[in-house]
Amino acid sequence: EDFQLRAYCHIDRMQPQFAAFIGTITQGDPVVEGWAALYVEMAPGNWVFPIVDRVVKSTDVRPGSQIVERHYGMFEVHSGSQADVLRAGEVVLEELGLVRADRMRPNVASVQVVTNVNPFQCQLLNRFNRGTMIVAGETMLVLEVEPAAYVTLAANEAEKAAPVRLNHFSSVGAFGRLWMSGTEADVLAARDAALTALASVDGVG
Amino acid sequence: EDFQLRAYCHIDRMQPQFAAFIGTITQGDPVVEGWAALYVEMAPGNWVFPIVDRVVKSTDVRPGSQIVERHYGMFEVHSGSQADVLRAGEVVLEELGLVRADRMRPNVASVQVVTNVNPFQCQLLNRFNRGTMIVAGETMLVLEVEPAAYVTLAANEAEKAAPVRLNHFSSVGAFGRLWMSGTEADVLAARDAALTALASVDGVG
Amino acid sequence: EDFQLRAYCHIDRMQPQFAAFIGTITQGDPVVEGWAALYVEMAPGNWVFPIVDRVVKSTDVRPGSQIVERHYGMFEVHSGSQADVLRAGEVVLEELGLVRADRMRPNVASVQVVTNVNPFQCQLLNRFNRGTMIVAGETMLVLEVEPAAYVTLAANEAEKAAPVRLNHFSSVGAFGRLWMSGTEADVLAARDAALTALASVDGVG
Amino acid sequence: EDFQLRAYCHIDRMQPQFAAFIGTITQGDPVVEGWAALYVEMAPGNWVFPIVDRVVKSTDVRPGSQIVERHYGMFEVHSGSQADVLRAGEVVLEELGLVRADRMRPNVASVQVVTNVNPFQCQLLNRFNRGTMIVAGETMLVLEVEPAAYVTLAANEAEKAAPVRLNHFSSVGAFGRLWMSGTEADVLAARDAALTALASVDGVG
Amino acid sequence: EDFQLRAYCHIDRMQPQFAAFIGTITQGDPVVEGWAALYVEMAPGNWVFPIVDRVVKSTDVRPGSQIVERHYGMFEVHSGSQADVLRAGEVVLEELGLVRADRMRPNVASVQVVTNVNPFQCQLLNRFNRGTMIVAGETMLVLEVEPAAYVTLAANEAEKAAPVRLNHFSSVGAFGRLWMSGTEADVLAARDAALTALASVDGVG
Amino acid sequence: EDFQLRAYCHIDRMQPQFAAFIGTITQGDPVVEGWAALYVEMAPGNWVFPIVDRVVKSTDVRPGSQIVERHYGMFEVHSGSQADVLRAGEVVLEELGLVRADRMRPNVASVQVVTNVNPFQCQLLNRFNRGTMIVAGETMLVLEVEPAAYVTLAANEAEKAAPVRLNHFSSVGAFGRLWMSGTEADVLAARDAALTALASVDGVG
Repeated sequence: EDFQLRAYCHIDRMQPQFAAFIGTITQGDPVVEGWAALYVEMAPGNWVFPIVDRVVKSTDVRPGSQIVERHYGMFEVHSGSQADVLRAGEVVLEELGLVRADRMRPNVASVQVVTNVNPFQCQLLNRFNRGTMIVAGETMLVLEVEPAAYVTLAANEAEKAAPVRLNHFSSVGAFGRLWMSGTEADVLAARDAALTALASVDGVG
Repeated sequence: EDFQLRAYCHIDRMQPQFAAFIGTITQGDPVVEGWAALYVEMAPGNWVFPIVDRVVKSTDVRPGSQIVERHYGMFEVHSGSQADVLRAGEVVLEELGLVRADRMRPNVASVQVVTNVNPFQCQLLNRFNRGTMIVAGETMLVLEVEPAAYVTLAANEAEKAAPVRLNHFSSVGAFGRLWMSGTEADVLAARDAALTALASVDGVG
Repeated sequence: EDFQLRAYCHIDRMQPQFAAFIGTITQGDPVVEGWAALYVEMAPGNWVFPIVDRVVKSTDVRPGSQIVERHYGMFEVHSGSQADVLRAGEVVLEELGLVRADRMRPNVASVQVVTNVNPFQCQLLNRFNRGTMIVAGETMLVLEVEPAAYVTLAANEAEKAAPVRLNHFSSVGAFGRLWMSGTEADVLAARDAALTALASVDGVG
Repeated sequence: EDFQLRAYCHIDRMQPQFAAFIGTITQGDPVVEGWAALYVEMAPGNWVFPIVDRVVKSTDVRPGSQIVERHYGMFEVHSGSQADVLRAGEVVLEELGLVRADRMRPNVASVQVVTNVNPFQCQLLNRFNRGTMIVAGETMLVLEVEPAAYVTLAANEAEKAAPVRLNHFSSVGAFGRLWMSGTEADVLAARDAALTALASVDGVG
Repeated sequence: EDFQLRAYCHIDRMQPQFAAFIGTITQGDPVVEGWAALYVEMAPGNWVFPIVDRVVKSTDVRPGSQIVERHYGMFEVHSGSQADVLRAGEVVLEELGLVRADRMRPNVASVQVVTNVNPFQCQLLNRFNRGTMIVAGETMLVLEVEPAAYVTLAANEAEKAAPVRLNHFSSVGAFGRLWMSGTEADVLAARDAALTALASVDGVG
Repeated sequence: EDFQLRAYCHIDRMQPQFAAFIGTITQGDPVVEGWAALYVEMAPGNWVFPIVDRVVKSTDVRPGSQIVERHYGMFEVHSGSQADVLRAGEVVLEELGLVRADRMRPNVASVQVVTNVNPFQCQLLNRFNRGTMIVAGETMLVLEVEPAAYVTLAANEAEKAAPVRLNHFSSVGAFGRLWMSGTEADVLAARDAALTALASVDGVG
């Protein structure tokens, strides 16, 4: 059997910038600060369609994304009620005949902190940023994790930990990637919170 | 030698929605219902360029697509004459020094049927659909096959078998993917026809 | 004073394809068949921002679009409750210090019916269609109305009147434009319903 | 003679967010905080090509944009030296045989302040924002001015006046439009600075 | 009656770069050097749909574009047979109940020649060029004409006259615009040929 | 340790079309003929961010691209001074604790020459070309190399060797790909120069 539960993680309370960023890039139902969400990634990708069907029919959540990329599929569902989102997660596992520990655990591929970012490097960063612009002179965090969907947990926990700016994250593909900026102290605190959150996710792998 | 003839398949008579969808997404010469087509996928990708050159010069077909993606290359040629398209297929094999049985055979990675599709799931599906919209309450077929180009055969044969709606298909990349919708009975009939067509393709693999 | 209430119209019950199409192109909160909506267009365009603010704060509707284009601004709000949407409309008028009859009335710039559409013309139509593909041989309705936002009323009423396919509509810009297809009888019935609905909208002009 | 010098304005010292935003959307040479720029808009649009040619050949500035839209043309040139940019402005006027007072003066079409922005309205705003996201609960400034290029002056002066966030501006088309957010007090200060700057621009009109 | 036949012009023999450029940007049936084409522009825009229908059904031409923009509609049809294209033109006029002299005649809004183009200006030009890149140091022609569709005639005749490079043209919108590059002598010859061709088009004005 | 220095190569003097093409597709600081550049590709992708930081701070180069794709990261820096670019290369190696020979060496996956290109194949090629259009009847070179960034060296050296047209190249992804066109003799000379340049790059592999 080739089925892989690549990522499975809960966002308990969306932080303000996290919610705003999801709203910016969403294809589906938009979200509000304080809401909860569930991110799930799997292979083969097309399995997301029956799983989303089951979840939206049996719980009171709405889907914000449902994406099939080169090798994997991922979806997000959310609600203002954390209990509904937890229940959605149980439905996913029941439907797949798995337990939570069958998920893959996150692997941090790289994490970097760059201080006093040069204006010409900023300019290139802002070309793809869809969140908050990075301004020259700030400190920047870049983090790369696989499976990709786990980057959402890292982003939300980092925002809880320090008043950094959420520049961008990408939670689809071979790697999840996160860009944040701020003062050096804040960025270091955000990094530590992101890494702690990722390390706390158990699973296979 | 690393050359792979990943996919090689004939569309004998393009169905109405199949032809309309190809016209919607085509980069090249558009097609008409009833015409025939040849889809070929290979690696390394750049081999498509000399092969298309040979085919369009030695037979009376026109190219509708010629795409080099991450790892593979694919092209489509078509004509109102099925004989011309069959001849084009022979030219491809001669040029490559292969026989038809050297092609890879299709592998169905997943196939799903979702009944009574939820409106919020529909909304996400329609964000990338370029064919006919799926409407809430319909039954949906999702099918994933590799190599990707074989999904064209599945789509065309499914449309022959039942009055389903062609929502979308993608025939480039690591997997080919197909979305259709309709009544449950029609979708099941379409699915069976698609799987039968794919199973009838011999090859290595 | 240059303020113009260019369009102001209610969609009482979104039809299935209308709802699916809005979901396909929406930038904001998605909609469901049977819900109600309010479309408003004005100049100067930036007036949409305080008006949407007032409406979403004082009534229980959600915004699906809020667009400022070359000369005009438009927004849409919706709800599963028709009463909420009617109340939203009252709030708009109160906020602007206007009554409904101060709106501009629709002017149909052109309306055309094309029978037995040629496959090559279909192909070009489908290049920009985001709704349901038109298939060669169908009859096609094309309708052009100003102000643009009134095309939504035409589309929804036409879908009520006959089992036509909603190919596309555009409700932003100098003109609203609508494309539908089906049998000739159905398309004529849809056209008549669209024109009747537009003629029933009073206003200045 | 139909020639119109629609806008002509200097940015003396690009503010941090202004520079970052220009870098985000630029088609040409990127800019750095503290640099100076010249924005010029004219009709017929194609006149921008010989004027940019003359300016970049006779002064030490680099072009960041050169755009011909529906009715007008606009360009931007910049330098780390304010003197070079002032000289570029003189070259433009000499080349056109005009004096500065021949420019059109800005006309503010609308200016709005919205407090405590609703999260669903935020979501729609962030869909087109390319600068810094607006977060629910902030106060928002929206400003609309013609000719469009003058919005750059409004944006830069507003950023000087108060620690607001630059969400987005558009300086091409029939109207220039600006979106900023922050606390109510900061947004009001930014608005006043923007209006004062626009009022200080003399010209015909 | 508001109907306007804004542009009506024949391309007798598509030049090599003209044909390649049309193929690059086409939404429909691609073209080949030496073929003939008819370009027609009208208002209201939606009239293009029944006119294209009539033309493709009664003559042996294929449509390459059919576009409705803010105020106008335009289409192109082509064939390897010049007689077929001439006949298509007659069908258009018959269908509209007009004669050729009822068309609007072209008005050249601006024409500029820039020698020894600066590399930074080239860079900005190449950002939107879809034809052949302009290389620094070349001489550039920029031409602006209304109605927009007449720019096709200017481009094709200019290419006949001199070995210039076709950088780009845009034949939809308020103005048609053309960019070519080469040696100064060649560009001047191309410009003269373009202006002569436009001046030879009679019509109302 | 998983770090890979996938590509590392210098462009000594950008040729005219090479520089124009880079300007066409650049996200960052534009370039001029005669300037030098350094292209570097690595995995994990996110390592590009600290490396670019170090390079732009310690040498007088500007970044033109900084891209993280599915598996790899790449960047380009450039300057009018070849010495500055050489120094930038040294900084990269020092920062990584590697020597030049630790880079991977290029592997040519395929190279093809197609003579007298058919107009319908040209049309498809021009759909993605961003450089100079290929015109029917020319001879075409297609080359595929991995790691992708080495295709830049192939393109620039080919342009030095013969007056071919640079149609397009892509230097990001699993493979770098290059398209050039011209007379057969010129294309063969360009091909040989490209292959010679790639063969001269030592490294692991």
